[in-house]
Amino acid sequence: MSATITSQPYGRIYNFSAGPCTLPVEVLEEARDSIMNWNGFGASVLEMSHRSKAFEGILDSAIADLRELMGIPANYKVLFLQGGASLQFSMIPMNLRPEGASVDHIVTGAWGKKSVEASNLYGGKTNVIYDAKESNYNHAPALTSLAISPDNSYVYFTSNETIQGVNYLADPANDGNVWICDMSSDILSREVNVSRYGMIFAGVQKNMGPAGAVLAIIREDLLERVPSGLPPMLDYKVMVENGSMYNTPPCWSIYMCGLVYKWMMRNGGVAAMEAKNEAKAKLIYDAIDNSSFYKGHAVAQNRSRMNITFTLPTEDLGKKFVAEAKEAGMIELNGHRSVGGCRASVYNAFPVEGCQVLADFMRSFEAANG
Amino acid sequence: MSATITSQPYGRIYNFSAGPCTLPVEVLEEARDSIMNWNGFGASVLEMSHRSKAFEGILDSAIADLRELMGIPANYKVLFLQGGASLQFSMIPMNLRPEGASVDHIVTGAWGKKSVEASNLYGGKTNVIYDAKESNYNHAPALTSLAISPDNSYVYFTSNETIQGVNYLADPANDGNVWICDMSSDILSREVNVSRYGMIFAGVQKNMGPAGAVLAIIREDLLERVPSGLPPMLDYKVMVENGSMYNTPPCWSIYMCGLVYKWMMRNGGVAAMEAKNEAKAKLIYDAIDNSSFYKGHAVAQNRSRMNITFTLPTEDLGKKFVAEAKEAGMIELNGHRSVGGCRASVYNAFPVEGCQVLADFMRSFEAANG
Repeated sequence: MSATITSQPYGRIYNFSAGPCTLPVEVLEEARDSIMNWNGFGASVLEMSHRSKAFEGILDSAIADLRELMGIPANYKVLFLQGGASLQFSMIPMNLRPEGASVDHIVTGAWGKKSVEASNLYGGKTNVIYDAKESNYNHAPALTSLAISPDNSYVYFTSNETIQGVNYLADPANDGNVWICDMSSDILSREVNVSRYGMIFAGVQKNMGPAGAVLAIIREDLLERVPSGLPPMLDYKVMVENGSMYNTPPCWSIYMCGLVYKWMMRNGGVAAMEAKNEAKAKLIYDAIDNSSFYKGHAVAQNRSRMNITFTLPTEDLGKKFVAEAKEAGMIELNGHRSVGGCRASVYNAFPVEGCQVLADFMRSFEAANG
Repeated sequence: MSATITSQPYGRIYNFSAGPCTLPVEVLEEARDSIMNWNGFGASVLEMSHRSKAFEGILDSAIADLRELMGIPANYKVLFLQGGASLQFSMIPMNLRPEGASVDHIVTGAWGKKSVEASNLYGGKTNVIYDAKESNYNHAPALTSLAISPDNSYVYFTSNETIQGVNYLADPANDGNVWICDMSSDILSREVNVSRYGMIFAGVQKNMGPAGAVLAIIREDLLERVPSGLPPMLDYKVMVENGSMYNTPPCWSIYMCGLVYKWMMRNGGVAAMEAKNEAKAKLIYDAIDNSSFYKGHAVAQNRSRMNITFTLPTEDLGKKFVAEAKEAGMIELNGHRSVGGCRASVYNAFPVEGCQVLADFMRSFEAANG
């Protein structure tokens, strides 16, 4: 088949990577234009003391803008930390599970599973109150349908499973539980009611900026749980007291997150992103649904708008699809080995045109190989 | 006094920040030129999957170049981790001190002190075999002069104390001890014999690249000490087994470190940097030594070539100096409050012209205020 011709600025291609991933062209241009000399400062943000007024301003603005975008209530602390979501899997039980207490985890994919493994390394009991393993993680049970342990310290879930493409699109109920949510791959892609959560965290490298930082939004009363004697870098209270700067933070990642937040604000905020994400995902899901060739992995009500997972009739056809898509200017469409087939990750900054190009390509490929 | 006129590309100023700090102009230009589309890849390193062949190549090259620059023997593992040197303060005892065993720490400044505080949070005994506190950390005892505990698991020191400007310029002897060294602020500034160390680590944000990663060089036999059950993100063995990619690494920091390594190789490697650093530091130390106005903090034999600390006759004169230097295009010359006065940080990428400009400024300021 002939290559789909795409025309993007700077010879860019459609990058469907699950993260790190496509960033807004405007944001990249701003970063590029500041890299020799930020805003007349005389040096780049890459070179700026994190103790300078200039960097403090960058950090404060990023947090203020994020608070506005997400409507974060005043009784929540916002932190930029290091070590990614994976280190949060350990820091959460270290900080927020009182010694010997039990916690509930809902497992709807690979990341939820890792959170349980990390939690099991600590004292106390980690109850897996739901595990979607038997269906190869193709769905997420309604949060209100689960038998939550009455004596839990918190209930943990993953709002969007990046590998499986399984998404919760609703917040937990206001039910008195401390809900902790890994929102790494769908934060800022849809409106959430932060007050329903005890803590939200997210690696920044999907919807916010380049890899190297992890965002944590913590209800301040939970900080009373933090035991003394934790290593300072792993202690939420130390991080709050030091405004995310106990040590040198990942300045550039935070700076670029701030640029992305401003870009979102210029473009209608979270509500506009959500509408755009729904339309983008629909282009690809329609190509799946109007075909007997492609098969979506996730059940309809839990389909992710961020990570669209599907299989082809055979593994070889899947490989051919990925290879020909690459020739046509679309990369990183290979699915994770646990799901097989293909995955198209289309976060906030991924252009709608790229979704259209992929949907067209899917139809052409099906016509040629179906 | 009149402002010193400096002329640098892109309207850049002389940035004496202790870190993050000045990066080579050529490296910044390369980063700038790749930010919309790296090397024809079609996306930036900021957006590239860390599991892509392209990023694997970037990581592998960075490590290979660093091995060549430092002459790292084959039996040492090289890792890029997260959490900065501060998290290493905890990971080192967690990983390398067998349960209940004792370790020796040499404290020659603020960072050594923090390493002891972190070490004390764990079981076992942390012997402070030397603490230069009484002299307000103005010197570093010869490593061979110390009474090292015969049953230590390792001996820990800080080769360059960034705040105090106190530097070891010699490696430990080949004495059978496992020497662990925080080289955050002088790595790659002078030739070292890696085989004398059990482990070297360094936050990258001084001599290597932008903040967000920490380098660890570990002799592989020490990995046998790593206990089971550590959180995976804090486990050196897990990090080695996953080639620094247990989770998404700080890709951009690693990429820029790689650019800095290539820049060093094009410019004569570590030996050439060392000669240049000696000449650069001499320009400023001469201005101190040929004056009764400025007083160096560190004793002559431990003077840092990276962080030059000095005081003025009064605190007010120090403040005036910093303010007038800023007017003249030199920023971040204020000293840390524990030392007072001024600090000029002049890492590898800091231009020699900037040291000359500062030395000239110091003489003018002395003439006007002395």
